[in-house]
Amino acid sequence: MTEPTSAALRPGRVSFDQLKQFITLAMTRLGLPEDDACAVGRLMAEAELQGSDGHGVIRLLPYARRIRAGGLNLTPNIKVVQERAGMALLDGDNGMGHLVMERAAQLAIEKARNCGIGWVGSRLSNHAGPASLYARMPMAQNMIGLYFAVGNANHLPPWGGLDMLLSTNPIAVAVPAGVEPPVVLDMATTVAAYGKVKAKAQRGEMMPEGWMIDRQGNPLLDPKRAEEGFLMPIGGYKGYGLSLIVGLLAGTLNGAAMGKQVIDFNHDDTTTTNTGQAVVAIDLSAFGDVDAFKARVDQLVRDLRGSDRMPGVERIWLPGEQSHAKRLANERDGMELPVPLLRQLDAFALEQGIPGLTTL
Amino acid sequence: MTEPTSAALRPGRVSFDQLKQFITLAMTRLGLPEDDACAVGRLMAEAELQGSDGHGVIRLLPYARRIRAGGLNLTPNIKVVQERAGMALLDGDNGMGHLVMERAAQLAIEKARNCGIGWVGSRLSNHAGPASLYARMPMAQNMIGLYFAVGNANHLPPWGGLDMLLSTNPIAVAVPAGVEPPVVLDMATTVAAYGKVKAKAQRGEMMPEGWMIDRQGNPLLDPKRAEEGFLMPIGGYKGYGLSLIVGLLAGTLNGAAMGKQVIDFNHDDTTTTNTGQAVVAIDLSAFGDVDAFKARVDQLVRDLRGSDRMPGVERIWLPGEQSHAKRLANERDGMELPVPLLRQLDAFALEQGIPGLTTL
Repeated sequence: MTEPTSAALRPGRVSFDQLKQFITLAMTRLGLPEDDACAVGRLMAEAELQGSDGHGVIRLLPYARRIRAGGLNLTPNIKVVQERAGMALLDGDNGMGHLVMERAAQLAIEKARNCGIGWVGSRLSNHAGPASLYARMPMAQNMIGLYFAVGNANHLPPWGGLDMLLSTNPIAVAVPAGVEPPVVLDMATTVAAYGKVKAKAQRGEMMPEGWMIDRQGNPLLDPKRAEEGFLMPIGGYKGYGLSLIVGLLAGTLNGAAMGKQVIDFNHDDTTTTNTGQAVVAIDLSAFGDVDAFKARVDQLVRDLRGSDRMPGVERIWLPGEQSHAKRLANERDGMELPVPLLRQLDAFALEQGIPGLTTL
Repeated sequence: MTEPTSAALRPGRVSFDQLKQFITLAMTRLGLPEDDACAVGRLMAEAELQGSDGHGVIRLLPYARRIRAGGLNLTPNIKVVQERAGMALLDGDNGMGHLVMERAAQLAIEKARNCGIGWVGSRLSNHAGPASLYARMPMAQNMIGLYFAVGNANHLPPWGGLDMLLSTNPIAVAVPAGVEPPVVLDMATTVAAYGKVKAKAQRGEMMPEGWMIDRQGNPLLDPKRAEEGFLMPIGGYKGYGLSLIVGLLAGTLNGAAMGKQVIDFNHDDTTTTNTGQAVVAIDLSAFGDVDAFKARVDQLVRDLRGSDRMPGVERIWLPGEQSHAKRLANERDGMELPVPLLRQLDAFALEQGIPGLTTL
């Protein structure tokens, strides 16, 4: 991937390199070793590049807050604590989740090369950005990538219940195609991710029916009242089941936090989150000819896209296709960050004694 | 598991052994080798036992129709066509799906014992009954079991589309607990499975809003008009994405039918279905102490069940808990089959020259 120089960018936009460098500098100043700061900078900028704006540079300030509060280990000893030929369990030693998950993906890829499949789980990890970031790593090696995570705040009760014991526990799956964009699903198991509720509140908008309900089971539409209710799982009891299963696979299996053990990292900067995640890699070459597989995916993508449409529908999207288009546009034009976020980042830069993002 | 003798059963009920023996006899008469007929009888009776009535003995007549039409291979050479330490790909040679999937589960379990994880896919398989049946096989060996399948009829268009290119592609995950019932999720990626629509039509009932829409996007409530519309995916575009991903993992990856290649086995008895499925086994002992894991699952189950409830909710269920209760009751009291089904089976028995189910 080539990034344009900042001179070529439209006004108000930042390039991938600028953003990566800015985050790297900030992370170094916060105390991360240079290589780790660089990896986090690259992965957070990558999140922004693919349009995962809720999990990109917007997270820099919350991460900084947690680091300053002593809630994150800046020099973790990330190590394999259980291992067989096709699996490993990582202890993240409370380090940045990005570092733990990049290591998990590398290990899953290695194992898949030998065994056809690699499953690597984590405990004592932390928030690592968008799920698809880690499902895409095996994909870049002609593998299918899967990612599961326990969310870092419980917003979902069991079906029919009131106690918020489950999180939005996301699933991502990334499948390589040939000439078509890859198929990349990245979804919370709730109708809306909690970040979307926060965004509605910030913009002063109401939520559509179906996102949240209150404790009597009535639709909750005002995002400012979000604390009075909870998120709805997709497909009712099915989404409750999916969220639970993802939590069992990514949390309970790894000895990571799940259910009552999950802390709300929006309101607690110091308690170890003990975040659990898992990256799975499936080597396409173990199943047959890789190019033949990709050609089958291409054909399927075209058949789906070419379907007749319902009245008023302009085009049919494949999962990950809009993110792919966003990535291409962001590589070409740079990324447009919201002005309030840019101001926050500038103030943060000033405070840290590093160059501001836009002047970098 | 102990089955009651038929003498102890309430009137109109059949025991597991009776049902197993009846299906085995029928399958033998239809031309399956004795061992295979016995395996299919056991698995179909097991499906009925756990309350999966849409995938149990109700399928005997459609299977018989396909076998008589020459659409199934009665003496398949089920073989491994691709293999690595952690994975295998089975060619089912168009045999009964139950036989292919039992073999897949056995192989996945073996591989998981060595590698920590085993992933076994299939092509040229057939309908194999309820998804959870095969996710439960690793579970019985202190493993987590997963199962994915491409459904045998397309009832779902891509989101915004009209062409039914996707099926209800189910997911099952079975997680062992200690003293609590296991957590077993078994779900179609559509709001309702198509079998539920057929059941509503048979009973002359209307469907709730949200199950189906017509080609203009309006709710379709009359199940007799089901052919005019299509099923709704869970969570809107998310369920569309999930169904697609399951199809890619269980179908496209294995060189099995997906998208346009999926035939509707309700209306076509002769074309090879080329059904794709996958069974995954995760060995708990690879991740740590098995009893400690089960104790964590028990605690989580109790926390969820003990949650405060919404007004009018009598109890909170865990995925698979109702099926577990049904299994226990069916083991104790025998299974109650609907009278019209019993009559169909009696007529079928007469035709085949085998003893009827109730007189067995």
